[in-house]
Order: sequence, then structure tokens, then C-alpha cells
Amino acid sequence: MSEWITVRSDQLQKIFWAKSVAVLGASTNPAKLGHIILRNIIEGGYDGSLYPINPNAHEVLGLTAYTDLLSIPTDVDLVVFVVPGPMIPTLLEQAKEKKAGGAIVISGGFREVGNDALEHEVLVTARRCSIRMIGPNCQGFTFRPNKLCASWPLITRRGSIAIISQSGTIAATLAGWAEQDSVGVSGVVSLGNQADLCEIDFIQAFGEDVETKVIVMYIEGVKYGRQFMDTVTQINKPIIVLKSGRTPSGEKAAASHTKSMAGRDDVFSGICEQAGIIRAATIEEAYDFAKGFNSIPAPLGNRLLIITSSGGSGILAVDVAENHGLRILSLEAMLKEDLRKSKLPHARVIGNPIDLTGDASIADYLEVLRVCETRDAADMYLIIFGDPIAGAAEGIKKATQQYKKPLGICYLGGGTVQSDELKNFSDLELPVFPTPERATRLLAALYHRQSLKENYP
Amino acid sequence: MSEWITVRSDQLQKIFWAKSVAVLGASTNPAKLGHIILRNIIEGGYDGSLYPINPNAHEVLGLTAYTDLLSIPTDVDLVVFVVPGPMIPTLLEQAKEKKAGGAIVISGGFREVGNDALEHEVLVTARRCSIRMIGPNCQGFTFRPNKLCASWPLITRRGSIAIISQSGTIAATLAGWAEQDSVGVSGVVSLGNQADLCEIDFIQAFGEDVETKVIVMYIEGVKYGRQFMDTVTQINKPIIVLKSGRTPSGEKAAASHTKSMAGRDDVFSGICEQAGIIRAATIEEAYDFAKGFNSIPAPLGNRLLIITSSGGSGILAVDVAENHGLRILSLEAMLKEDLRKSKLPHARVIGNPIDLTGDASIADYLEVLRVCETRDAADMYLIIFGDPIAGAAEGIKKATQQYKKPLGICYLGGGTVQSDELKNFSDLELPVFPTPERATRLLAALYHRQSLKENYP
Repeated sequence: MSEWITVRSDQLQKIFWAKSVAVLGASTNPAKLGHIILRNIIEGGYDGSLYPINPNAHEVLGLTAYTDLLSIPTDVDLVVFVVPGPMIPTLLEQAKEKKAGGAIVISGGFREVGNDALEHEVLVTARRCSIRMIGPNCQGFTFRPNKLCASWPLITRRGSIAIISQSGTIAATLAGWAEQDSVGVSGVVSLGNQADLCEIDFIQAFGEDVETKVIVMYIEGVKYGRQFMDTVTQINKPIIVLKSGRTPSGEKAAASHTKSMAGRDDVFSGICEQAGIIRAATIEEAYDFAKGFNSIPAPLGNRLLIITSSGGSGILAVDVAENHGLRILSLEAMLKEDLRKSKLPHARVIGNPIDLTGDASIADYLEVLRVCETRDAADMYLIIFGDPIAGAAEGIKKATQQYKKPLGICYLGGGTVQSDELKNFSDLELPVFPTPERATRLLAALYHRQSLKENYP
Repeated sequence: MSEWITVRSDQLQKIFWAKSVAVLGASTNPAKLGHIILRNIIEGGYDGSLYPINPNAHEVLGLTAYTDLLSIPTDVDLVVFVVPGPMIPTLLEQAKEKKAGGAIVISGGFREVGNDALEHEVLVTARRCSIRMIGPNCQGFTFRPNKLCASWPLITRRGSIAIISQSGTIAATLAGWAEQDSVGVSGVVSLGNQADLCEIDFIQAFGEDVETKVIVMYIEGVKYGRQFMDTVTQINKPIIVLKSGRTPSGEKAAASHTKSMAGRDDVFSGICEQAGIIRAATIEEAYDFAKGFNSIPAPLGNRLLIITSSGGSGILAVDVAENHGLRILSLEAMLKEDLRKSKLPHARVIGNPIDLTGDASIADYLEVLRVCETRDAADMYLIIFGDPIAGAAEGIKKATQQYKKPLGICYLGGGTVQSDELKNFSDLELPVFPTPERATRLLAALYHRQSLKENYP
């Protein structure tokens, strides 16, 4: 077992800001990973030097292929390995000659299948060569500020969410949703076996990265609890953790996956509370939290006011709010009076939720917000569009500019108008959630983090 | 308050199997509900007689418009009201003259905004006229076997899920997902204020409907507990209930929405356990359960075996399984031996989960299934495709034909191959879930219902 080495982020410079990348095992076969990764680097818009290594081809994907690392005419910052594991120690020595500082080992066949000796040899070699390594047995690395997508699937949209994951699939899933939702990512790292670099190194790196606003992680365990704690407490960015191995059977499964010691879940929960980390319960929740923390400001208290066109959706939200530490206050008499005198049509339910009913327009929502804000009626608002309400995205854009309070937006049951509006929300870079439960859960998480920060300043 | 009347389903004949429908308030303005509903009836393929009523138009959407109900040349089975509430009692009398047996009152402005007197008048009139009524303040009714979509959004795909909802938005959301997923529905009813027909009537009706295999409901409360219980226990179809008003604040909100008495949640849970009803926690879970119960057989025990290409996804599934009453048994020595001797490539993790790792093929999954089934290794399987695995849908189709055990399928992190495969799954009418957590939760629900049935045969 390797000891954790305090990483100075300049050591990761040649990974994050690689000016040249070699892909070892760059296949001409489109079904092979070595081909897919090279293609994603190209299609991802990488503008540094790119060298496919393939002894049996003159070119791959239109690029000159080299027989081996040593035939490359220049130095290389980063080497991506998609070759059989036993070849890697020798190849690392060659990478050193090319002054490489980083390696991404996609190849499997190491500790995850019981081959600890090979993994140890690779690690020792990398250390001797002063090469920092992601993996082995990983799904690669994406850093959009450097336009580098040495991973799959192809992720091109630049955003401010960093994804750190012990599972390649979960990294790909989160990144795929961010791409699809036009939310984008700053970076994605699939940690694999973490022989060298581990989650702590990337928390630190993304913590320092100016484009990253929020870090979302999937982990099975934390190897270096003390350093993990030290690092996360130094980072003043929201960190969301999805951790598996929470049950005894899960812990056992985690041990055989990445040999992680999941550890007692309540202990980990305690660490999270102290460090201001937000735990997510599912992959979808991790994504929702990342999306929300990415752009919604923190609430200063836990008073939630719900404005909806769908009564039922409002009540589902109330249940979630109450179960997760938010307060659903009754409206004060003066506010009710203001709302009754306002420009709203008369057939509305003035309570909390405020139910604008099925024929609500975006103007009604904005009028309610305006009146509520004059009385400081809440610390945050949940806005549920439960019908085909046009102009919702544009209206909400104005509201976010005018009022600084967190708005959780949910759109459902709106048919074709909804499809159009979801596109508008996406174009305006406003997060929307598919159900009232998910939007409310996010608001509760925003408040939870804020309250942790107040308790442990 | 009306007393609940035991409905003989022949009383609903003229709603479910209406041979002629009149739409009162059939507007020429495409933004109006009266227009949208008429259009959806047409585009939904209704092949009975259809009469738009609009005193100011000669035709609406290409159909001859009538000044009033009485000018229609024939009798009318079902009348859809999209006109101001106060007009409805008189119009019901006219509907009676046309021998109508059913009414759908879309119009609002009744009990939900404090106008109890008008609602009472409408109910009394409907009773006197022997017209059974959905609503008022509802989003309509769809019954695909009669090709009738007197609701919105437009739902055309015929399936075997019946949706009964106190919220029009939630009905529309569930139906919209079923349409999008190619799962389809048998029927959708938005109950509205339930002045006359309530959830019990529709449980009974869909219980008798031969095309309906599963009933999914959103409710805020149950008015007639005894009759509810009697009805659900008679229906030998899975019933899934999403109930809001579970917390004190939620209960209060429910009271002001549809004046439902949410009642104590633990009491309702007890009723569900006794009646074999499955409770869903969220709108998405209600949908997942409906989709799963619709086509996946019940497991005969709670032994779950997980086959995955993604280690992390498998562990997340293990946690959910353990938290929801499923057992993740270790593999028996002889089975392990069989698997080692099988056609699987060697670099696999043989445990539970069985981790086929990222380069798994569909053949690997099928080989594992085959071997496990020869040893009766599990009561159900969770199959996680966590990579771009082609041929997954076709392979699973074969497996469902060959083995009668429940298979929970989840596909994630598979990029463009995944998009293609999801389409294939949909074409083959095989349910797939987007995350391991959701697929596992469904398997647990399948087992839970089975165990309730065994406890209360």
C-alpha cells in the first residue's frame, strides 16, 4: 500500500494543463477503447500536440501514428495507457525520457482482479519516474478549460461542476446528464484503483481550479481520513458526496470492487457534518445537488414558500420539505391581504403553498414573488410549473436577477409547452428539476450546507 | 357531503365506452382548454360521434359545431364541460334529455375555491339526471381501449397501466412518461374534486377492465376508508399508491387543495399492508413501480443476484437492496466453480455482485444467467449495463423468455450505444430503469407485494 503523498497542485500541472498527449494503444478499430479515447480527445477540441502510438499503423484518425513513445519528435506531458498492464512499467520508463509528468492508465487487470504485484510495480515505477498517475483500471480524465477529454463518453460542454468518481460508469452518467442538460463540467476524473492519485488530490486540484464552483464525488471509501478531512475543510466550495457501501452487504461489495474500506457509515456521516460536505443518497440526487449548488445561492434561513399551479405537486413538496428540515410557515395576515389586493385573478388558493391553479400565467408567478418579497415572506421559494405555462424560463431569469433568494424550479405535466420551456431554461442556464420532490430536496440541501457552515465557521 | 354510492361498473359504461361525446365550450382558440381537449379527442383517434358545442362558431377543428346540446341530432353518451361552473346545472338537465350517462367537468371554481354550494348543486343535479360525473375541477379522462383522450396532454399509446389521480398534473406527468417510454396506458383519470365519482369507483372499473394490469394512484386522502379497503382487497391487480399529506404540514396543505382529510400516515400504511397495496415515495417511484409491475413477474423469494459491468453501480444497488428487505447472498462454492469453468473471460469478479467489468459483452451476461439458473442461485436478478454494451435489449428479451424469474434492468453510462439500446428495449417492450437504485427499489417492491400476498392470502 502506498502512503498518501501531499500533492502540490503544480505536480498535477502536466495532467490538467498538458500541452502534449500521447495515446498508447491508439487503435484503428473504432470499437476499441484506444480508438474511442483518441477520437474523443480530437472531437473534444484539444488543441495541444497529440500523438497516437500504434506500431502497426501509419496513421490513426488522420494523425501520424508513432511506433513507440521514443519515436515522438518532441517531449510529451501526458501519456494515456490503453495497453496490456504488464507492458506499462517499461513504457513508463520511456515516458520519463520524454519528460512526461502525468499518466492515465485506462488498462485493467491489476488489484481489482487480485494482481496486486503488478499494480505495485507500476506505482513504484511511476514514482521513480516522477510521473503522477490516474488509475489504473479507470475511465480517464476530462478537463474542459484545457479542452481535453481523454475519456468516454465525449464531454464537450464547459461548465463549473467537477466530477470525481471511483466508478467510471457513475462519472460517465453524471457527466452525460450535465452534457445533456447543457450544464456542463469543468472536469471529470475516473479514479480507478487510485494506486497513486486519489480523491484527495483532485479535491485539492479542483478546489484550486478557478472554473470549478462545485465538486461532486462518488466514493466507496476514504483511505486517508485525516488528510481527506484536512483537504475538504480547506476548500470553500460545495462538496457533494455519494458514498456506497453504507450497509454491511454494501461494505463487503465495496471491498471487492476497489478494495475500499467503506468504514462505518455513521462515522463517515459525522465527518461530513463537520467538514460541511453534503451527502447525496442516489446518483440522481448527487446530480441534482451538483446542478443546484452550481448556480443557486444559499438560503439564509429555512423558511420555504411554495408557489405552484399544481396543488398535488405542492403537497408532495411540503412533505419533503418538512422531512428535510425546512419550515412551511403559514402566510401572515398582512401578506395575505397584499396578495388579495394584488393583480392576481381571484380564484387562487392563498396559503403555503400558494396555488395559482391550472390556468396560471408566468405573470401570476412573478406577481406573487414581487408581493412576497416586499414582505420578506421566505428565505427561499419553490416554484412549480405544473401546466403548459409559456414564458416561464424568461420570467424566472428576470426573477433571479431581481431577487437574490434561492429559487428551486420544477416543471412537469406541461406537454409540448414544457419541452419548449425546458430548452429555454437550458439556454438561459437556469437549473430545472423534473419533480417537486427533487427540487425541494435540493433546496433543503442548500439550507443544510448553509447551517453547517454557521455551526462550524 | 355526498355519501359514497356503490358503483356498479355498468353505470360507468357511458364514460368508459362512450359511443358519442359532446364538448361544451369547444373553442376555436387553440390556447383554450375546450379547444385542446376537442383536438386531443380527434388526434387520439376517437371513432365515435363527436359534437363540439359552441354558439359562436359553425365549425371547430373541421367538425360541425352546435349551438347547444339540444340541437345535436342524436343522443349523446358523454358530455365534457369546459364552461363556467354556474352554467353547469342547467346544461346537465339538457344532457339528460340527450340521454347522457356520463359527464366530465373540467371547469373549476367549486369547492377548491370555497364555492361548496355550487358544487353541491351540480352534484344534486347530476344525481337527479342519473349522470355519473368526473370532477369538477379536473383534467379529464382517457381510456385507450375506446380510443378516447378527453384530457391533456395527448396520450395515444395503448398499454396496461391505469392512472387514477387527485392531481391533474401528476396524472399528466405519469401518463407523459408512459407515452414517452412507449409503455402506454389503459386509462387515465384526473379525479378533481370527486363530487360524485371517486378513486374507489375507478379502482373498481380498472380492476374489471381486461386490459389493465396495474393501477397507479396519486391521492391526498381517502374519504371512505371501509369501502376503499373492501374494493382494493377484491382487486387482484397490483395497486401502487403515492399519497401526499404524510407530514403535519403536508396534511394541512392537502386539506386546502382537494379538502382531503389526509389522515394519520401510519394508519394509512397499515391499511396498505393489509390490502396488499404498494406505497411509492415519489412521483418517479410511482412510475417505476407501475412500469415494473406491468411486465415483470413476481419473485418467489428475496434472494437478489446482481450482474453488472460497473462495480460502483452494483454496490449502490446492494445498499438499496439491503435497506429494502432483499438478501444479497454470497455465491455458493459450487456455483463459483461453475462460473470459473464457464465461457466467461477470466478477468471477472465472481461474487455478488458478479462484476463483469467494463468490457463485458451481452454474451457474458447471458452466460452468467445461464450458469446461475442451473443452480437456482437467486429469486431475481438485477442486471446493470454500465458501459456501451450493444445487443443488450435483444439478449434480455431472450432471457425473459427463457427464464421466468424477474429481471430488473438498468442501463447507464453507455453514451450513444445506450441511446440506441434504450430504443431497442422500448421497441421490445422491456422496462429499463435509469439508475441501479431505481431498478433495485422496484425489485424490492415486487418482492414486498408478493410477501404481503403470502401473509394475507
